[in-house]
Amino acid sequence: MAQVNIRDDEVDIVIGALHLDLTSFMEDWRAVFSRFHLIIVQDPDLKGDLKIPGGFSFDVYTKSDIESVVGSSSSSVVFSGYSCRYFGYLVSHKKYIISIDDDCTPAKDDKGELIDAVAQHITNLMTPATPFFFNTLYDPFRKGTDFVRGYPFSLRSGVQCGLSCGLWLNLADYDAPTQALKPGQRNSRFVDAVLTVPARAMLPVSGINIGFDRELVGPAMVPAFRLAKEGKFRWETVEDIWSGMCVKVICDHLGYGVKSGLPYVWRNERGNAVESLKKEWEGVKLMEEVVPFFQSMRLSQGAVTAEDCVIEMAAAVKERLEPLDPVFARASEAMVEWVKLWKVVTSRLSNFAA
Amino acid sequence: MAQVNIRDDEVDIVIGALHLDLTSFMEDWRAVFSRFHLIIVQDPDLKGDLKIPGGFSFDVYTKSDIESVVGSSSSSVVFSGYSCRYFGYLVSHKKYIISIDDDCTPAKDDKGELIDAVAQHITNLMTPATPFFFNTLYDPFRKGTDFVRGYPFSLRSGVQCGLSCGLWLNLADYDAPTQALKPGQRNSRFVDAVLTVPARAMLPVSGINIGFDRELVGPAMVPAFRLAKEGKFRWETVEDIWSGMCVKVICDHLGYGVKSGLPYVWRNERGNAVESLKKEWEGVKLMEEVVPFFQSMRLSQGAVTAEDCVIEMAAAVKERLEPLDPVFARASEAMVEWVKLWKVVTSRLSNFAA
Repeated sequence: MAQVNIRDDEVDIVIGALHLDLTSFMEDWRAVFSRFHLIIVQDPDLKGDLKIPGGFSFDVYTKSDIESVVGSSSSSVVFSGYSCRYFGYLVSHKKYIISIDDDCTPAKDDKGELIDAVAQHITNLMTPATPFFFNTLYDPFRKGTDFVRGYPFSLRSGVQCGLSCGLWLNLADYDAPTQALKPGQRNSRFVDAVLTVPARAMLPVSGINIGFDRELVGPAMVPAFRLAKEGKFRWETVEDIWSGMCVKVICDHLGYGVKSGLPYVWRNERGNAVESLKKEWEGVKLMEEVVPFFQSMRLSQGAVTAEDCVIEMAAAVKERLEPLDPVFARASEAMVEWVKLWKVVTSRLSNFAA
Repeated sequence: MAQVNIRDDEVDIVIGALHLDLTSFMEDWRAVFSRFHLIIVQDPDLKGDLKIPGGFSFDVYTKSDIESVVGSSSSSVVFSGYSCRYFGYLVSHKKYIISIDDDCTPAKDDKGELIDAVAQHITNLMTPATPFFFNTLYDPFRKGTDFVRGYPFSLRSGVQCGLSCGLWLNLADYDAPTQALKPGQRNSRFVDAVLTVPARAMLPVSGINIGFDRELVGPAMVPAFRLAKEGKFRWETVEDIWSGMCVKVICDHLGYGVKSGLPYVWRNERGNAVESLKKEWEGVKLMEEVVPFFQSMRLSQGAVTAEDCVIEMAAAVKERLEPLDPVFARASEAMVEWVKLWKVVTSRLSNFAA
């Protein structure tokens, strides 16, 4: 699987800590994580000190670190709950980011072998993507496969991959209504494939288990879409769905790819879906407006960087979505502010490096 | 897997016979094929009588049957080689068609169980498709799975499926250059998934192992694109790639879906790829024009049936592709003539039924 050479200094693993005791999480991932640098961002709503086992290279960021960068608490960019990880995306200066929820453990493949999720994400990101024609045998750059008959040769070099979306075994990433309706349903099917999601097709990106090329699409990984009653369970959030569609629109515009499939992680049980229903319906309802918006979003030729694209999208959100629900006004503001933050932090880091 | 009830009288299995002796092929498929009616079309270039074992319900169509329907031999619709199966599509009056190349045998799944390719195609065709938003856990209508968080509820009922494209184990469907470059490469990876190829994404449909809803898309399964040096090996043909893109454009326009993935069939060794190179390069080169044509094809609101759509596409082929290569002139003519044939044969069959 890992057909690429990973340089340790090109990768940051970003963990949003929603629990104080990370011991069992970190021990479960030790074999996979220990050679890389970790950025651990403590949910600013979480009081107390994190418990992290020894033998890892990491930096921890807490509420006070966040405030020192973001400044006033009246900012529309909010790093609480699952969104705390976005602060890690901001302060990293590595090319590749891998982020995995702290209720996940390594999964096993169909042969019973432990899956190295980091290696698979990096392979996905370092090998080309093929968004402009669908290859029926999935990833043509995987060992033992190729482009099938009829695939144009001019498209076979592919394009750079911006985002790698991994999947989940056991507890699947359903919304609260689905989870409440089918409380016993678990995902046990290991599908041994990675594919490029075709250009102009939107997908529900889950932030549970992702990797991305920070240089290509980092500014689009924006914590913009915060529900009024956002909770601390995945099914009570849609921030990742929103930023995922931002990335997809930008990749389509700039000519990068988004992959979905391997690697899997194992998701452990958490939360009460029925209790969450009252929060999650808000997200479910808003998707009916959000999806057509991103599907029809077309960026101008003047937008040549991810930053440009996010700013253009923020203006479109303001114009087309803000009249529908106040949640969109804040999303638009957060997108603009995020790009400002990104530029400030990036220039600080490059001054520091120089 | 087979979660749907298949009515035997709704299905025709169409076999293009490129060999006289079908004994081992039919015996290999007996458990899967024997409850259905078979339409066996003998390649008109193949002299002699077919050898077909007992215990099947079938009709055989030969060169003289083809001529009695198509009339003069100056027709631009040609049913020789792999294209002979299209005659079966024309004379069937069933809702669903399954077609499998006569060099394939049933494959085994990852648990070693024989795959019922017909049941899987019918399941794919009878359950909804989801072309307007990508579901990261693949087919949401499969037992044990669902739509993931963020998937709009308004799109969850899905749309009708027009075409089901199955895959191949052992000899994969590469073109002659790829096959010649990697003569030892075999596909051994069983990917346990069916997915809807998103709207507006084109794919290289292979005719080796397909099922389709004849009522929805039958007229688009057109034997239009015949290479000057077309041969009797799959890698020397592109007729299926062309008709597959016709179907995909039509499904996108009329709001149907195209699925890809399961079922697999096992493809046996045949032919010499290096020998075929001189023929296949023609197809490979033409794809560079064909793919952008179909990608940019937009049908008018007036085109409300598959027949209408094929006629509109034929006009566009004439206008945009004919100047590039004479092979396209014949393709355009064949598309128009095919729709005429389809209407004549269909009305004859319905008169016969009445």
